[in-house]
Amino acid sequence: MRKSRLGLTAKQLNEILCNGLPRAAELQLKVEQANQGTCKLRLPYSEQSLRPGGTISGPTMMGLADAAMWISVMSQLGDVQLAVTTQFNINFLRKPPPTDLLAHGQVLKLGRRLAILEVSIYSEQDETLILAHATGTYSIP
Amino acid sequence: MRKSRLGLTAKQLNEILCNGLPRAAELQLKVEQANQGTCKLRLPYSEQSLRPGGTISGPTMMGLADAAMWISVMSQLGDVQLAVTTQFNINFLRKPPPTDLLAHGQVLKLGRRLAILEVSIYSEQDETLILAHATGTYSIP
Amino acid sequence: MRKSRLGLTAKQLNEILCNGLPRAAELQLKVEQANQGTCKLRLPYSEQSLRPGGTISGPTMMGLADAAMWISVMSQLGDVQLAVTTQFNINFLRKPPPTDLLAHGQVLKLGRRLAILEVSIYSEQDETLILAHATGTYSIP
Amino acid sequence: MRKSRLGLTAKQLNEILCNGLPRAAELQLKVEQANQGTCKLRLPYSEQSLRPGGTISGPTMMGLADAAMWISVMSQLGDVQLAVTTQFNINFLRKPPPTDLLAHGQVLKLGRRLAILEVSIYSEQDETLILAHATGTYSIP
Repeated sequence: MRKSRLGLTAKQLNEILCNGLPRAAELQLKVEQANQGTCKLRLPYSEQSLRPGGTISGPTMMGLADAAMWISVMSQLGDVQLAVTTQFNINFLRKPPPTDLLAHGQVLKLGRRLAILEVSIYSEQDETLILAHATGTYSIP
Repeated sequence: MRKSRLGLTAKQLNEILCNGLPRAAELQLKVEQANQGTCKLRLPYSEQSLRPGGTISGPTMMGLADAAMWISVMSQLGDVQLAVTTQFNINFLRKPPPTDLLAHGQVLKLGRRLAILEVSIYSEQDETLILAHATGTYSIP
Repeated sequence: MRKSRLGLTAKQLNEILCNGLPRAAELQLKVEQANQGTCKLRLPYSEQSLRPGGTISGPTMMGLADAAMWISVMSQLGDVQLAVTTQFNINFLRKPPPTDLLAHGQVLKLGRRLAILEVSIYSEQDETLILAHATGTYSIP
Repeated sequence: MRKSRLGLTAKQLNEILCNGLPRAAELQLKVEQANQGTCKLRLPYSEQSLRPGGTISGPTMMGLADAAMWISVMSQLGDVQLAVTTQFNINFLRKPPPTDLLAHGQVLKLGRRLAILEVSIYSEQDETLILAHATGTYSIP
């Protein structure tokens, strides 16, 4: 039974994130909360993340959502850093304001081989208005 | 009729890419070919793009695919830099080797308001073996 | 402002569903609830919907999810039957039991031209355990 | 090595399709060609498949695409009827005319546990103009 396995804490997951993903470290991406299949990540605002129109680029939000999926899996399963994305889908709903972004991740289903994840992205100004919504599948080693 | 509009050349698109996306400039992403709805981009190998397991990260390939979609649209429609992704889907098929990646983008459908795009990602070692396959929708201003 | 438009009731939407989609009428699909961007649909169990393994087929759930998206749009916007799906994504999480299925639909974002929708599918036995999760985009005429 | 396994013929796959999926039999869906990971299916035009606006419904094309994925897997792997969709994504590009539809399916990647598939849907009037484009993942038993 997977359910008896021990998920990692926000602090442990933050170390994995910074050590494992040079790009996440560069962006100062941070795990703020994590608990048994759910997590909250913060992406600080950076001009490096902009695109024409002065808004935060799509791939920046994709990277945030994908990281929140990875962290969600480990918050429930423990240290499975080699879990990899097999499929990822994202809808962009609203133009993000020039602020920090927050990603709320959660495990929808944890099977033996695959995990299905959902992530909603908000601005720090309004954690009720979804800016982007992603779903994805991780293959568990 | 959109079809009569003039698409941009690879050289023009490369300038738009480097000037418009700081992250693309940092990664030295380059438009190698572009012609009326199709394009080829090259992403140089970089240790900054790695993830645990020593492989190129998913978000790196997402960013490459999204850029190839944007460039594909402009290769057919001209300078519409404010075209934005509304939806993006990617499947990861094979682990990328530690080399440059190539993205082949193409317009599947160009409507008045929406463009549907397809991108296949290859390593520079083998342009027949798809590593990742993405589809997406751009909203045209 | 779209928000001032009058959404339709479950009874009105049920008539639109049965009259507009012969296949939905055949399957006795029913709108049980609908209110300003959310809805609940019931799909009666039918042996016509099975696939090898004796389980309800994927396309049956796709059709249910797509109908719940269409109904969600009209529950907020009124009678826009000509709204059409432009993109649809679904993840299958758990094998459905041989019972009625319920779909909970909701509008994530209603723009002038596009609506983004989310649907979760449950069995009537357990409305907390998601069997399938779909997101999609409708183009509004 | 999976590659040494024997795929099924169009005739064998047609029997599996009709016997395994009551809905496919009802719609007289037919496997016209199948060979080592590729296939072509025909869906006869039917008024049962219409939606408001008089066009073929989205779920009809989803069902066609999903069947073409299932058949593509078995055209390469043999009789694995219990292979099931885990994820499915479709973009609708053009309104289908009132004719038979054709689906061209192909395996993009066949792994030990997962297969990634791509399907393009055409009308019988024009097998160069894509009406809908789908990708999906099948879990192999």
